[in-house]
Amino acid sequence: MRHYRTWAHVLGTLLLVTAGAMVLPLLVSVYYGEDDLEAFIVTITVTTAVGLPLWAGFRREQKLRASGAFLIAAFGWVVIGGVSAVPFVLHGSVPSFIDAFFEMISGYTTTGATILPDIEALPHGLLLWRSETHFLGGMGFITLAVLFLPHGIIGLRLFRAESSPGQIITKERFTARNRDAMWALWGIYVALNALQVLLLLPKMSLFDALCHAWGTVSTSGFSTYNSSMGHFESAWVDWVTIVFMFLGGVSFMLFISALRGDWRRIQRDTELWWYAAILAVLCGGVALVLWGHGTYGLLDSVRFGTFQVMSILTTTGFTTADYELWPNGAQMLLYIACFVGACAGSTTSGIKVVHYVILGKFMVGAVRKIFFQPLAVISVRLNKERIETSAVHLAICYFVVNIFLVLGGGVVMSLLDDMDVMSAMSSVIASLMNIGPGFGEVGPSQNWSGISDAGKVFLTWNMLVGRLEMFTALVLFYPSFWRS
Amino acid sequence: MRHYRTWAHVLGTLLLVTAGAMVLPLLVSVYYGEDDLEAFIVTITVTTAVGLPLWAGFRREQKLRASGAFLIAAFGWVVIGGVSAVPFVLHGSVPSFIDAFFEMISGYTTTGATILPDIEALPHGLLLWRSETHFLGGMGFITLAVLFLPHGIIGLRLFRAESSPGQIITKERFTARNRDAMWALWGIYVALNALQVLLLLPKMSLFDALCHAWGTVSTSGFSTYNSSMGHFESAWVDWVTIVFMFLGGVSFMLFISALRGDWRRIQRDTELWWYAAILAVLCGGVALVLWGHGTYGLLDSVRFGTFQVMSILTTTGFTTADYELWPNGAQMLLYIACFVGACAGSTTSGIKVVHYVILGKFMVGAVRKIFFQPLAVISVRLNKERIETSAVHLAICYFVVNIFLVLGGGVVMSLLDDMDVMSAMSSVIASLMNIGPGFGEVGPSQNWSGISDAGKVFLTWNMLVGRLEMFTALVLFYPSFWRS
Repeated sequence: MRHYRTWAHVLGTLLLVTAGAMVLPLLVSVYYGEDDLEAFIVTITVTTAVGLPLWAGFRREQKLRASGAFLIAAFGWVVIGGVSAVPFVLHGSVPSFIDAFFEMISGYTTTGATILPDIEALPHGLLLWRSETHFLGGMGFITLAVLFLPHGIIGLRLFRAESSPGQIITKERFTARNRDAMWALWGIYVALNALQVLLLLPKMSLFDALCHAWGTVSTSGFSTYNSSMGHFESAWVDWVTIVFMFLGGVSFMLFISALRGDWRRIQRDTELWWYAAILAVLCGGVALVLWGHGTYGLLDSVRFGTFQVMSILTTTGFTTADYELWPNGAQMLLYIACFVGACAGSTTSGIKVVHYVILGKFMVGAVRKIFFQPLAVISVRLNKERIETSAVHLAICYFVVNIFLVLGGGVVMSLLDDMDVMSAMSSVIASLMNIGPGFGEVGPSQNWSGISDAGKVFLTWNMLVGRLEMFTALVLFYPSFWRS
Repeated sequence: MRHYRTWAHVLGTLLLVTAGAMVLPLLVSVYYGEDDLEAFIVTITVTTAVGLPLWAGFRREQKLRASGAFLIAAFGWVVIGGVSAVPFVLHGSVPSFIDAFFEMISGYTTTGATILPDIEALPHGLLLWRSETHFLGGMGFITLAVLFLPHGIIGLRLFRAESSPGQIITKERFTARNRDAMWALWGIYVALNALQVLLLLPKMSLFDALCHAWGTVSTSGFSTYNSSMGHFESAWVDWVTIVFMFLGGVSFMLFISALRGDWRRIQRDTELWWYAAILAVLCGGVALVLWGHGTYGLLDSVRFGTFQVMSILTTTGFTTADYELWPNGAQMLLYIACFVGACAGSTTSGIKVVHYVILGKFMVGAVRKIFFQPLAVISVRLNKERIETSAVHLAICYFVVNIFLVLGGGVVMSLLDDMDVMSAMSSVIASLMNIGPGFGEVGPSQNWSGISDAGKVFLTWNMLVGRLEMFTALVLFYPSFWRS
């Protein structure tokens, strides 16, 4: 702990920003005159009282090792999640701290899995706070906090360590230009949210529109209603949400390209077109199965099928129907969608299309080399440019580790909670990929309150591992990490 | 088809060897005086009548390209399986040819999945023939056929293309020494079978002992009873079978080392020790769960738990209990065992331990290189020697392709047969890994007769892909393959 001064300062910053973020739900609570006001006042006061001296008292030293940045990314979430959980416990609507912590980590990691059996019983302030964690987590809350830090180097490192659209800024030094890019990304993010709110307003209150837009663009999935997006029973709402889930799954750098009018960059983006193609196949497949089995008419098959595939593939997790009542073929396609994920550099989690593209191209090349052309060089091209071997290796590791975590996590959950094989693996998939709903005991008509405390803690860990793209969390186990 | 003469000769050889292999069940049929005699006589006569002229008429030309060898390995199985299915159809005990073909491919690929609702209704001749396919398939029937071919080069190539203990002879030219090694491997295989028969004899008839030994050492799993190995209700039988399933999962080259007294080679065999360690953990885990839940007493928990883990991990597929009635934790551990597999160069199929060892070492090295030591070289060591990059690439491709095939195959089965997600994937896992029983609709208390014809053909393809270690089957889709 040589750098305890920096640590204290970062911790103070995180506490202050969290307290600051709670002002909005506080105002909502005042507006609706509900009984969660006290909970917010107490939490904000105490958090500020602790955070302010830490922030002000340890300003000078700013050096931080790479390992420190990883640690902040990993444990920063835990601190923020813990503080954010307090209002729920104080108010009494979520008596168990572990439950409230689960709900908040589920919010910040953009998972959207809820332990609330009756969401609609919550006062508006807490509901808004719950959804606000999505908005903050979608772009990486810690990067926001870092904007308030004076020196850039920490920001860069956190940015690399944390999964978010910021990811694209990796190789370059954290210069003023990069800070500008970070602001631009946040600007696009806020603009997308605002646009969706406007489009949703004809069909719902400003409060609902805000909460659901936050849950959509960040691809998270908390709703303010027990029946999720299905509550509105509106094709307009469904299609608006489908479009913004899709946009939330696109690499945010492409929006910058679009704003600059650089359409060639978008045209030659390998991942974007695979993302669209996979979505088209899966949406079409599910719609066909639903229509073929007579579950819905043709138009509704397309609407409900597209919504659910988009929701699961982009790791959002909203539902408009209980898909466990759908034909098996449709369920299997949704299960596949869990493993796909959207684009890197978007607000989504999961394995992501780019990793499959790299993996696929690598394997085609490797098999050709082994069986036919021993002297060939395996070259993987992305966006018409050859990518580094280390990027290929990372994609391989990423995919394999995900599969191992799903299988291993299934064992843990089946032992901890006596879950059946399908539910156990599904609970891990739904939390590791930050999706939200799964199959069986964690299906769309269920909630996560029945899981044991140990199970909840384990799944919370999975959410964090998924959101931090595993390696941030896993490198902590390397001896080299602690020596570096 | 420039080499049609060679093809005709090889086809003739395969037909003759298959007909020859049917003489044993014919004799059994004569001995028991049952009604399957005619079916065998007709099949042997016709097969010989077609095979003999092909074999004798096209002896001279022996040149065969690598692609030809792959094709024989892939389609040789189909021809052999088709001919072998005929007696079942002629006898009428399996009226559908597709069912009989499924059963025979299940036999030759050492899968052990059966479409027979009542196994015990079959006459002895057909029962023996059914089990004999295991004996022949365990070491790779085609390699046996190749022993009868005069020139070696084809043998080598088939040997490489076909998954079997022969796999270990890869890099060297097919010399007299290698032919000796092949005979030695077959000798060890036959000796193991004979030894198990002797050990089983105190508890069952010679007929049953022979059939079950064939199903054990080849890690296949057809029984002559509906309740599989559980029929005997004998701890002695169970433990003997456990030992021989374990031995069937060991690389056969290690037996040669043992015979030579080369214990150092065995001591430093990385895969063997991982194989033993993984088995110990999984057997111990399942036994503990069974005991902890009070499913059995301590001794029976160890016996039934060890048997089932060994049976599934080595891809044998015998059962002594309906494990779907076991606690969820035990089922989940068995599900994991499906993905592990035993050692390369054994009679087993599946992903195999060595691929995980390579994958694990590669990933540890890759993550270290990416995050901590960019200049480091990723070096994967096996048996204390550095292995080639192409072997690492093959292990990666092998694992990833397996996962893709399971997920993609799940979609196919859910669409073809309206199977639920768990059953659909499990049916693919059970056939692709050549295990036999799975979960859900293909669970240990079920049989595969309820699956549609299209589903059976698809699963048969999966068995072949798994037995040929996928690449033999998959390289057929490469344009380079047809050009080479």
